[in-house]
Amino acid sequence: MLVQGKPYRTIWVDEQNPAVIKVIDQRCLPHQFVIESLTTVEDCIIAIKDMHIRGAGLIGVTAAYGMYLAALHAVNSDFFETHILDAANRLIATRPTAVNLSWAVNKQLAILNNTPAVSEKAAAALLSANQMAEEDAQYCKQIGEHGLEIIEAIAKKKNNETVHILNHCNAGWLAFVDYGSATAPIYAAFKKGINLHVWVDETRPRNQGASLTAWELLEQGIPHTIITDNTGGHLMQHGMVDMVIVGTDRTTSNGDVANKIGTYLKALAAKDNGIPFYVAVPSSSIDWSLTDGIKEIIIEERNSEEVKYITGLNDGVMKKVLVTPEKSPAANYGFDVTPARLITGLITERGVCEANQQSLQNLFPEIQ
Amino acid sequence: MLVQGKPYRTIWVDEQNPAVIKVIDQRCLPHQFVIESLTTVEDCIIAIKDMHIRGAGLIGVTAAYGMYLAALHAVNSDFFETHILDAANRLIATRPTAVNLSWAVNKQLAILNNTPAVSEKAAAALLSANQMAEEDAQYCKQIGEHGLEIIEAIAKKKNNETVHILNHCNAGWLAFVDYGSATAPIYAAFKKGINLHVWVDETRPRNQGASLTAWELLEQGIPHTIITDNTGGHLMQHGMVDMVIVGTDRTTSNGDVANKIGTYLKALAAKDNGIPFYVAVPSSSIDWSLTDGIKEIIIEERNSEEVKYITGLNDGVMKKVLVTPEKSPAANYGFDVTPARLITGLITERGVCEANQQSLQNLFPEIQ
Repeated sequence: MLVQGKPYRTIWVDEQNPAVIKVIDQRCLPHQFVIESLTTVEDCIIAIKDMHIRGAGLIGVTAAYGMYLAALHAVNSDFFETHILDAANRLIATRPTAVNLSWAVNKQLAILNNTPAVSEKAAAALLSANQMAEEDAQYCKQIGEHGLEIIEAIAKKKNNETVHILNHCNAGWLAFVDYGSATAPIYAAFKKGINLHVWVDETRPRNQGASLTAWELLEQGIPHTIITDNTGGHLMQHGMVDMVIVGTDRTTSNGDVANKIGTYLKALAAKDNGIPFYVAVPSSSIDWSLTDGIKEIIIEERNSEEVKYITGLNDGVMKKVLVTPEKSPAANYGFDVTPARLITGLITERGVCEANQQSLQNLFPEIQ
Repeated sequence: MLVQGKPYRTIWVDEQNPAVIKVIDQRCLPHQFVIESLTTVEDCIIAIKDMHIRGAGLIGVTAAYGMYLAALHAVNSDFFETHILDAANRLIATRPTAVNLSWAVNKQLAILNNTPAVSEKAAAALLSANQMAEEDAQYCKQIGEHGLEIIEAIAKKKNNETVHILNHCNAGWLAFVDYGSATAPIYAAFKKGINLHVWVDETRPRNQGASLTAWELLEQGIPHTIITDNTGGHLMQHGMVDMVIVGTDRTTSNGDVANKIGTYLKALAAKDNGIPFYVAVPSSSIDWSLTDGIKEIIIEERNSEEVKYITGLNDGVMKKVLVTPEKSPAANYGFDVTPARLITGLITERGVCEANQQSLQNLFPEIQ
């Protein structure tokens, strides 16, 4: 997508040096556009864990490149396999909720195992990581095309008046390699000339909406308004939201969705006001082994400092300010689970389906 | 309530000089405890409008003292009545959602009208403001006693295990003259030795939970944890909340409640998880003329800068940081309406009742 009018992806292999992976350091957005170089698996681990990059798709692809870098640097070691398994375990342990991480790492482990010559393992892992990046972008693009049809139908029903879409967190192109999941239909609809306006949930505590989604939309020139996470219900009560689209970090086989904390509250409000609530679901986010999201999905608990302190721009410099009493404790759950019963539809790369086991299986018949 | 172990109210007449009204400047909390002097109606208007003081009860009482100060300074004017009416209109216009403001101002207008001698009008208005302050504190205390019974029943059912109470915004003693509305039952239960823990919703954009409720609870020594506004639903899904108590800025005669934006989302989550959702309702917040909260209550829209910038402590100094792209617009709705159907009960100074017209009228039979 566009940054200052120039097309970018969130992760790419350096043109001059294939041992260098480039990413956008999202901690600096929206105030600065900084590109970071990752040259070791350790760099990838830190980038994922400390959220230089984040988002279900992107952490998977970054982990895939991390496995490539691990293979590249371990090629002359007597303990190649130990290094690789250690890298895999540490990458998977960086963040617990998104399924893409273990999906990507396990895929790379299989590639490395299936490449007999040690000298060719790194090249095979690089090829595979590139394919995963490409597939991620392609799937998001397809989600955009399927989601576009939903937005088009709403626009038609409204006689081409502005379609108001509410979005929580950042399931934008910054969370993937390109296009994004929840934003892909928005970008596709905007490109097609549909009148759009996006309500951007701030998304405390890390403000992914206010800092990333708003920045994305601004860079593409799409009309949007930032709101606090408290506001969506009020807007829905007053007919100011036509649809909700969110992303997912882990989707169960019956259609429960773990997404950024607060998603469940918006789904309840959408249900209460008869507003369609869609989830953009690349199949890489589906954990086919799970059937009860609330009971089975592990919810990441992050550092309480993320709640107590907020970072922003003051006089041109990034400053961290304390917004609570210093001695008050805080809790920081990263995700919540929206039960399938609250979801109007899942927008996958293969098409839109209802949020239940049968509908998902119909779209992905190869899954046993 | 206690501040550093010493009992305070939020507003009082200076002991040395009855022409000076003292308030706690809540903009400085939780980092600094600052007392401000109000000596003119203009001071009161600024204090309400710019939220040096806030909260349904306290803005009503501050407006009442504002009317007293207006009368005090207009006593030698040939245009006494013009001054008074102007003061009344400007005080009522400071904030649109809470009904207490017009309730208090109109009460003072009647007192001033009914006091024939101009020389006695200010004294009558002071006496009346003092009575309103006293009544506000008394009603909150009674709400505490009625709410205590609900908490006691839950504690009993849990065999005296910790009762977890979720609170949104600040309907604490800082929002009233003393005790608070939603906090009064918590303070009463804590005093009685019931094991309590309060989940404190941050309450963006102005962070009244993180900065005021957390500070209040810390000063009284009550266990609490600050959470983002996104978190309550997840906690409720996992059995970590036993009840919700919130305040109200305007209550309709059929029991709809306008309270801080985001309250509606918590009420939906409570309903979805079978958790009791109570509203602490001093009768001063009831607007008997309204029967449909969503359609009839005017929702205040505040400056979008409150969403885009956050103020907090950095190196011992208060700093304001930008957390969004500078060019992204933001919207700032101050309140939302929770329909009566989502409310388990209203805790008034006269007792607990169901959120419907008949139950409210049974408690307040004098209202036609």
